[in-house]
Amino acid sequence: MAYSVRIDRLLKAAKAATGDRISVSSAGRTFEGMLMPQTGAGDPDKIVIKLDSGYNIGVSADEVRKLVQAKRAVAPAAPARFDPAKPAIAIISTGGTITSKIDYNTGGVTSLTKPEELLSSMPDLAKFVNVRSISMPFNIMSESMNHEHWQLLARECAKELNRKDVRGVIVTHGTDTLHFTSAALSFFLRNLGKPVVVTGSQRSSDRGSSDAAMNLLCSAITAAANMAEVGICMHGSVSDNYCSFTRGTRVRKMHTSRRDAFKPINETALAKVWPNGEIERTNPAVRVRDDSKAVELDDRFEPNIAMLQTYPGSDPTLIDHLINKGCRGFVVQATGLGQVPSKTRSWLPHIKRAVDSGVPVFLAAETIFGRLNCSVYSEGRAVLEAGAVPLEDMLAETAYVKLGWVLGHTKDMAEIRKMMLTNYAGEITERSTGEGYLE
Amino acid sequence: MAYSVRIDRLLKAAKAATGDRISVSSAGRTFEGMLMPQTGAGDPDKIVIKLDSGYNIGVSADEVRKLVQAKRAVAPAAPARFDPAKPAIAIISTGGTITSKIDYNTGGVTSLTKPEELLSSMPDLAKFVNVRSISMPFNIMSESMNHEHWQLLARECAKELNRKDVRGVIVTHGTDTLHFTSAALSFFLRNLGKPVVVTGSQRSSDRGSSDAAMNLLCSAITAAANMAEVGICMHGSVSDNYCSFTRGTRVRKMHTSRRDAFKPINETALAKVWPNGEIERTNPAVRVRDDSKAVELDDRFEPNIAMLQTYPGSDPTLIDHLINKGCRGFVVQATGLGQVPSKTRSWLPHIKRAVDSGVPVFLAAETIFGRLNCSVYSEGRAVLEAGAVPLEDMLAETAYVKLGWVLGHTKDMAEIRKMMLTNYAGEITERSTGEGYLE
Repeated sequence: MAYSVRIDRLLKAAKAATGDRISVSSAGRTFEGMLMPQTGAGDPDKIVIKLDSGYNIGVSADEVRKLVQAKRAVAPAAPARFDPAKPAIAIISTGGTITSKIDYNTGGVTSLTKPEELLSSMPDLAKFVNVRSISMPFNIMSESMNHEHWQLLARECAKELNRKDVRGVIVTHGTDTLHFTSAALSFFLRNLGKPVVVTGSQRSSDRGSSDAAMNLLCSAITAAANMAEVGICMHGSVSDNYCSFTRGTRVRKMHTSRRDAFKPINETALAKVWPNGEIERTNPAVRVRDDSKAVELDDRFEPNIAMLQTYPGSDPTLIDHLINKGCRGFVVQATGLGQVPSKTRSWLPHIKRAVDSGVPVFLAAETIFGRLNCSVYSEGRAVLEAGAVPLEDMLAETAYVKLGWVLGHTKDMAEIRKMMLTNYAGEITERSTGEGYLE
Repeated sequence: MAYSVRIDRLLKAAKAATGDRISVSSAGRTFEGMLMPQTGAGDPDKIVIKLDSGYNIGVSADEVRKLVQAKRAVAPAAPARFDPAKPAIAIISTGGTITSKIDYNTGGVTSLTKPEELLSSMPDLAKFVNVRSISMPFNIMSESMNHEHWQLLARECAKELNRKDVRGVIVTHGTDTLHFTSAALSFFLRNLGKPVVVTGSQRSSDRGSSDAAMNLLCSAITAAANMAEVGICMHGSVSDNYCSFTRGTRVRKMHTSRRDAFKPINETALAKVWPNGEIERTNPAVRVRDDSKAVELDDRFEPNIAMLQTYPGSDPTLIDHLINKGCRGFVVQATGLGQVPSKTRSWLPHIKRAVDSGVPVFLAAETIFGRLNCSVYSEGRAVLEAGAVPLEDMLAETAYVKLGWVLGHTKDMAEIRKMMLTNYAGEITERSTGEGYLE
């Protein structure tokens, strides 16, 4: 399909082609965004522009007062040459918005299959590092990731980390469950001596407001830095000024669309990273690089686990239903300091029955931030008596991933409890400092 | 049980009695807190002090270098006289930490039964208002509240609001599910002309660090102000400087223990309230007082509803299990812009089956902050095709309460959808401003 002759003329005069950034002025208003092709569904006499908000608007030829090409669409760059003066990092791509682009037919976003397409659009990367580009055998949006993807990914990470020439690993990933994957890698990769930087983008790389390029650049800087942590590197503020590198077990997606959606939970971010190559540690509790260490893969995982929320009217029979289906452990999101409904629809007998039958029940805070303390109220003490174990200041999502990992190692109740309360990857702190609240 | 003779002597010399605030210095350290009685369980030769952190410590008589009484325990004040120059407000108490005190036997917190006990410890209240004190027929911690409590409470609120002499209503309540109750009152109380201020405290009123007094004082100032909104009034910062009054449908408990645990979601707080009586509107979208309005009680509610989370490995058969048990509607917390797992353990057929059988499924954001937009990704469009309806920028907890309220009014699928997407109590905004993110 094509635009009308009138629009074709306007576009030619402005030397504007599909994918270019254009500016169109009509009476009193100016729209700037990406020129979309005419797809057949719309009026061929209307220019379709994808605004930075992500929405498409159509401006009819009659209304156009001025049309200028603001920026030429980026042409794919040639692959960068290997530069022995720069560190090598591996980029493992799994899918998600960061490797997606706008589908001109639907105006929606579709997944790219080749990570090279992403890299070629980010020539700045070659200023800092040599890139080894690795594709996983799957390419999915993150809401469909599961423990098998985490295991495949951890194996690939371990392989790359144990290469002498690789300074660190970047994982590109959809953002929806990014923090589950970063938690899984935190537990699966033992004896870590190099950084594993998990990143994604909230807006696809061909959008003017995309965070993909800066997130990837800052991730590369972090992957080459003097750290040995699994973490998430994403925009630290709504502006394009710096990224935050946050521990993989202490981070959560807190906004549907903002570029600074990932926030540290109960701990300060590990570092601030600027796209010019600067990096500032913001947390003293960072393990430093030791390239001599061989990373050990420990990815045993019990997938039959569940996370449940308590709330007014919540149904505790979900516990029984899931146990009947083979569920081996629970993370229950308790209210406040660690309470569950105990009058009508009481959760207490269901928790007790689960624990008595050898299915452990752990508590995490529904409030997301803060530490549980079940001994303050008699209602909290009743949950302890039922056999539930509060997990201090561990994030519920991290607790869920950790529970699968722990159950992959032991079925002994005492050992499960002990492992859940042992700090393996910065997921528990002994004493709360009040830091990491809505930073 | 009693302290040892040595400790009794030290206490007598300092004129310190149980409940007083004392300061005890040992070699190099000074502890300040409330003098606890000797309960028999501990060493009678150790003075037990409840620190402001909530923890008890024992200092043995040998170590005491200095012991001073810092502040006498507050004696209950006489009830304030009615002052015709001041507005009358009703305080309806339901239970929770704000009407609790430390149990000397356990060191934990137990619930008071008489709201007068609370009021008598807050003589400042009488400076601003005349108080009508109302007890509900229940006194419970908020994790055990359910829709029947919300209905009883709404009825009591309506009765008080429709009294000519009452300027506004305060509800004191446990904090764990405070935001569910504030949402319920927002929908149940129609044609509101006066403020309904829901408040609680994170630390009981007999602790040095308690937020009870200031929260109640600021709530009284808000209840007498020129507004007609249901909202939560709690500490706005970690310091004791001001409270935030936040819309009842736009607020969530975000921290287990901090006094500034309640945060506005996707909207700026309505007002800042200082304990000296000042109040500053911080949001233009506030309905103003109209004392001539008669509030209408509309508390029909369908309790057979559920809220479910999606996450890697989450089990969509919970939908079927709950429908078999009589569940009439769901709020599903979707990831990102509104996706659900669609590959292994896909939620799509379960959602489709529910909707096809007349059980509506609505989507809210698991990220808590932000707006859903299911049309960006094909995965989101698939959820729409399955029949789920995304609820814009509505908070999941608010959506859950609203769903019960809507289903109390109609069983017609089109009407349910229409009502869920109609803004009744500020729960939806048409366009996101980016305000109300981690303020």
